[in-house]
Amino acid sequence: MGRHKTLVVLISMQQEATPIIRALAMRSMKDPFGKVLRIKGFEKKIQNTRLIFIVQGIDPRFGVETVGTEAATLATQLAIQTFNPNLILNAGTAGAFASRGAKIADVYLSKGTCSFHGRRIPIPGYQEYGVGSYPLLNVSKLASRLGLKQGIISTGSSLDMTPSDKTQIEGSGATLKDMEAAAIAYVADLHRIPMFAVKAVTDLLDSKTPTSEAFLKNFKRATEALQKHLISVLHVCATSPLSAFSRRT
Amino acid sequence: MGRHKTLVVLISMQQEATPIIRALAMRSMKDPFGKVLRIKGFEKKIQNTRLIFIVQGIDPRFGVETVGTEAATLATQLAIQTFNPNLILNAGTAGAFASRGAKIADVYLSKGTCSFHGRRIPIPGYQEYGVGSYPLLNVSKLASRLGLKQGIISTGSSLDMTPSDKTQIEGSGATLKDMEAAAIAYVADLHRIPMFAVKAVTDLLDSKTPTSEAFLKNFKRATEALQKHLISVLHVCATSPLSAFSRRT
Repeated sequence: MGRHKTLVVLISMQQEATPIIRALAMRSMKDPFGKVLRIKGFEKKIQNTRLIFIVQGIDPRFGVETVGTEAATLATQLAIQTFNPNLILNAGTAGAFASRGAKIADVYLSKGTCSFHGRRIPIPGYQEYGVGSYPLLNVSKLASRLGLKQGIISTGSSLDMTPSDKTQIEGSGATLKDMEAAAIAYVADLHRIPMFAVKAVTDLLDSKTPTSEAFLKNFKRATEALQKHLISVLHVCATSPLSAFSRRT
Repeated sequence: MGRHKTLVVLISMQQEATPIIRALAMRSMKDPFGKVLRIKGFEKKIQNTRLIFIVQGIDPRFGVETVGTEAATLATQLAIQTFNPNLILNAGTAGAFASRGAKIADVYLSKGTCSFHGRRIPIPGYQEYGVGSYPLLNVSKLASRLGLKQGIISTGSSLDMTPSDKTQIEGSGATLKDMEAAAIAYVADLHRIPMFAVKAVTDLLDSKTPTSEAFLKNFKRATEALQKHLISVLHVCATSPLSAFSRRT
């Protein structure tokens, strides 16, 4: 299957990662980025591909899963400088708009570019920098092959959505709202490494249920769906030639 | 003056850094974090202290100064792993509340803990993680000695301030609103390296002038004030014993 390659999957929550790590019987790595940073690593060889999961795990100060864009930025840089991957995936959960066809536990592949909401810098030039719009790998063929939906992702630092966030998210054409993808795409773009995302829907942004309530209620169902489809995605990525990962949107 | 030490100053904008680098006649470092990441470094020896300025510079995709928390997270991690500093300073500009006594071009030292606004995660435990509240070095003696004001800093990803941001900022008791300090404090805290901030006021958050307009109008005056006072701060830090940097708030 061609040259050796390294595939890094970045996952923020241990609870999102554990079912998949178990299903793949991945091997735990010892402190991939040193003891000070408690970020976890898991690996497995699939044919000529070194598959590495980087899981942020628990924040040492606050004792909760390390979600959000700052932590994702940190883990992406560390993963790139340590493992020099050919391809980066971001896997996790997200909110989505029912008005755009999303249902709870749907699994989406990313589409188009990935941008930020909630980084409002109303000065010419800075406005565009704040939004970001980082290129992602074009995975439309992969989506067709596996029968997965595709949607644009908008990333922000909050689980809820203010009116100004909503305006920005709608303006980007996003179906999905998450808390990491654009930060990972930003660092991947700096290093010119192709990246795409796989996201399972935990909550519908246009429903009357508060996001936090829906998130907690649907989290298990969404991560089960993520597990099933992410394994298929990883199998295709691991057994495809390197050239399949060079085209970007 | 005791053992050798390394002092890293993180500055997001080249325009904030240039007057100070010139005044101190600092030497430019060649690609401190490699050619791919265009972050700049400048250094100078002051007595037994290696003083290093890390300046994010221009974003390669958008061509504007690399402001914000994701870029600050990245630069802080790179600075720590490359230079292993004993102390980290964040220097730059900020908005401030006139109602708390701030005036344009005032220079503040940080106070108390540094937290985020605009990271709203309304789930128990995650709420506190989102806000952050990272410890900073207690610099009240330094402030008295140099006659500088002190204020709590709240960090967010936007130059403007939505009603929900305002509620969060007021709740933290902050006098100052910036776009990097809490992200730098987060990474410094992970590595247990003491940190504090020096911020010059570009705009008054409770004035009727929009932040972007005030920022552009007052930026030069604020950076001139920053230059003058930061040099005094750096001189004290460079000539103080290591033990002066171990107490945190």
